[in-house]
Amino acid sequence: MHTVATAPLLVNHRSYKRPAQPTVVVCVDGCEPDYLAQAVAAGRMPWLRRTLMQGVAMYAECALPSFTNPNNMSIVTGVSPAVHGICGNYFLDSASAQAVMMNEARWLRCPTLLAEFAKAGLSVAVVTAKEKLRALLGHDLRGICFSAECAAAATLATHGIEQVLKLVGRPHPTVYSTALSEFVLAAGVRLMQTRRPDLMYLSTTDYVQHKHAPGTLAANDFYAMLDGYMAQLEALGCVIAITADHGMRSKTQLDGTPKVIYLGDWLREFLQREDVRVILPITDPYVVHHGALGSFATLYLPADVRADALCKALAQLQGIESALPREQAARTLELPADRIGDVVVVADRFTVLGTTPAGHDLSGLDVPLRSHGGRGEQTVPLIVNRPAPLLDRKRRLRNFDVFDIALNYAQ
Amino acid sequence: MHTVATAPLLVNHRSYKRPAQPTVVVCVDGCEPDYLAQAVAAGRMPWLRRTLMQGVAMYAECALPSFTNPNNMSIVTGVSPAVHGICGNYFLDSASAQAVMMNEARWLRCPTLLAEFAKAGLSVAVVTAKEKLRALLGHDLRGICFSAECAAAATLATHGIEQVLKLVGRPHPTVYSTALSEFVLAAGVRLMQTRRPDLMYLSTTDYVQHKHAPGTLAANDFYAMLDGYMAQLEALGCVIAITADHGMRSKTQLDGTPKVIYLGDWLREFLQREDVRVILPITDPYVVHHGALGSFATLYLPADVRADALCKALAQLQGIESALPREQAARTLELPADRIGDVVVVADRFTVLGTTPAGHDLSGLDVPLRSHGGRGEQTVPLIVNRPAPLLDRKRRLRNFDVFDIALNYAQ
Repeated sequence: MHTVATAPLLVNHRSYKRPAQPTVVVCVDGCEPDYLAQAVAAGRMPWLRRTLMQGVAMYAECALPSFTNPNNMSIVTGVSPAVHGICGNYFLDSASAQAVMMNEARWLRCPTLLAEFAKAGLSVAVVTAKEKLRALLGHDLRGICFSAECAAAATLATHGIEQVLKLVGRPHPTVYSTALSEFVLAAGVRLMQTRRPDLMYLSTTDYVQHKHAPGTLAANDFYAMLDGYMAQLEALGCVIAITADHGMRSKTQLDGTPKVIYLGDWLREFLQREDVRVILPITDPYVVHHGALGSFATLYLPADVRADALCKALAQLQGIESALPREQAARTLELPADRIGDVVVVADRFTVLGTTPAGHDLSGLDVPLRSHGGRGEQTVPLIVNRPAPLLDRKRRLRNFDVFDIALNYAQ
Repeated sequence: MHTVATAPLLVNHRSYKRPAQPTVVVCVDGCEPDYLAQAVAAGRMPWLRRTLMQGVAMYAECALPSFTNPNNMSIVTGVSPAVHGICGNYFLDSASAQAVMMNEARWLRCPTLLAEFAKAGLSVAVVTAKEKLRALLGHDLRGICFSAECAAAATLATHGIEQVLKLVGRPHPTVYSTALSEFVLAAGVRLMQTRRPDLMYLSTTDYVQHKHAPGTLAANDFYAMLDGYMAQLEALGCVIAITADHGMRSKTQLDGTPKVIYLGDWLREFLQREDVRVILPITDPYVVHHGALGSFATLYLPADVRADALCKALAQLQGIESALPREQAARTLELPADRIGDVVVVADRFTVLGTTPAGHDLSGLDVPLRSHGGRGEQTVPLIVNRPAPLLDRKRRLRNFDVFDIALNYAQ
């Protein structure tokens, strides 16, 4: 029935209008807002400069931890990690006492907007830089979903598309490169040119942002490249909404070396025992550019160690922003209580958390560490290339409001 | 008596050992820690690289508001603005209902370490970049105290020194220049070479930091220059302690223009009245490089406007970090309750506070705004060029602990 086909869709208790034009949501990994401001001021983003004057140009807060997977999943579900369940790359499975990767769809606790829109008959396409996100983003999705990293492996049966390299017309990028993100954006343009999906989600990687500060030539080059692809999508008639999974900040001591609190060492000294498990949810198979050092950690305590006393001691350390027992952390940071251990530790914006020095290979760090994970990297841009006159500009937005704004407010 | 002459000095309830070698405390205006990290990593600060390995290299928190005068006064008194009374450049004098500059010594509520050390018979020298600080820093001081800005005006009777330009051997710098800070450092070296004061305080200006981000060529050039003068002071046998009055951050919208909440406009709309006074304590005679836009403001309310309801509404605005009624602000931010108005507003690290657009001349802003005033600019370096084995490296320091550490811990 016509009325059904045009009715808004309800996903995770939020209502979304169906797209009237092809709508593209872009998650620019690690896009600290200053990257855009500096690149625009330097004249490197002519499309964005125009767009910011005509459309939506706001700041938003990402979900915590300010990591890639939790925030990509918040963006495509419209809810916090407390609801969707993906609160990092790793957690400690209490059943097995093993550290378990959370990049499989079975850990996801709610449907994605992408899957629900596809079920409602809309054509949906997803391109992500890294393979680690594909299974989660593509969960239950009848549509196109592939990663730039494994573009050559895409088949019609498993990814809804084949011969991606031929479609995109670019060489297969390596995983640590600017080209990986560019491949995502180029693929998005080619998909829009050839298949015109109703809804498309593009998610880049933060290789450049981990290495280069806002306003530097390498950063401006990246954003100039992004700007060009956005202009192409706009020329194809798309509504474009841009946000980020998290920001990015310098995390160094005064000599430029990483400013790390090694929680494993500290706990051993403070508790005089070895049986506290430190989980760093930033850890994934790709750690060369950050050495698995982020500003967020969870601790799993033996039954006879009191969380509140430990939190009090941790919170007094220079470099720690907060250390909260499980229930309080779940409540105040919007996290799933059963996947965050007994204590959640968040470092300040200058500091990252490690296990022990031996647990981190920093040999790949060829520039002063830039990383994320805490509140210091929570503020991100939220941009739409159309006016949204009914949107309250003083509202405190989340990055996971981006589909709401693109579909319900953009005109 | 010998015992008296070597006894520690008690100033503002803190005890300080007399310097065994000439001791120099340097306040590097606007020295966001990343300036040092990037310059060291780029190989531009060989002296500092060596010093950080051998001496004290810590992070510290400055006083709020994170402005120049409150923090310079905290550093030279060893106490917070709640005690010394200087909480900005301006406040509203309730007796006269006039905005009053707080750069005169009559507003200072406690003695400085500099004056007390001079009274105890030590030779003391102070050089500050801008004249606005001279009266406060030199209050009650029997010693040398002059500004680079008005170096030519120094006389023996009023400044404890004359013919400063001849002594320094450099041309008189203009007020908006790198040369103004360099003059301070060059003067410090010349004073140490010619007069060898027991205690010296050098305070630069943040002209470079307001314009240039950490790691940029102009910033690295500034810090390379600083490094050279520090090496000269060290070669003269000085204990050197370096800290900052505040950090510095980009404060822009996504298009690179200043991200301002105009409180005057907002209050007029919210309260439907015109009689709230907005005081921006960053305002001083030198506003070209920041347009009097900082992240801290105080409000003086008519008697029938309730502070708590107003604070609640303000705190909900995107860009506001906190809005607190007078007593709560005084307690939690360590401010003098009688000089902060009825409400203290602190903006987040992306945002500055203004009165009305017409109240700010932004024509001098030739690069994206960088400014300070809030918690986002509270973290600063604290460095000493000597080991301090008894200092707890996990302690949360304040920048106004710098004399304590230089005199009581450095070996």
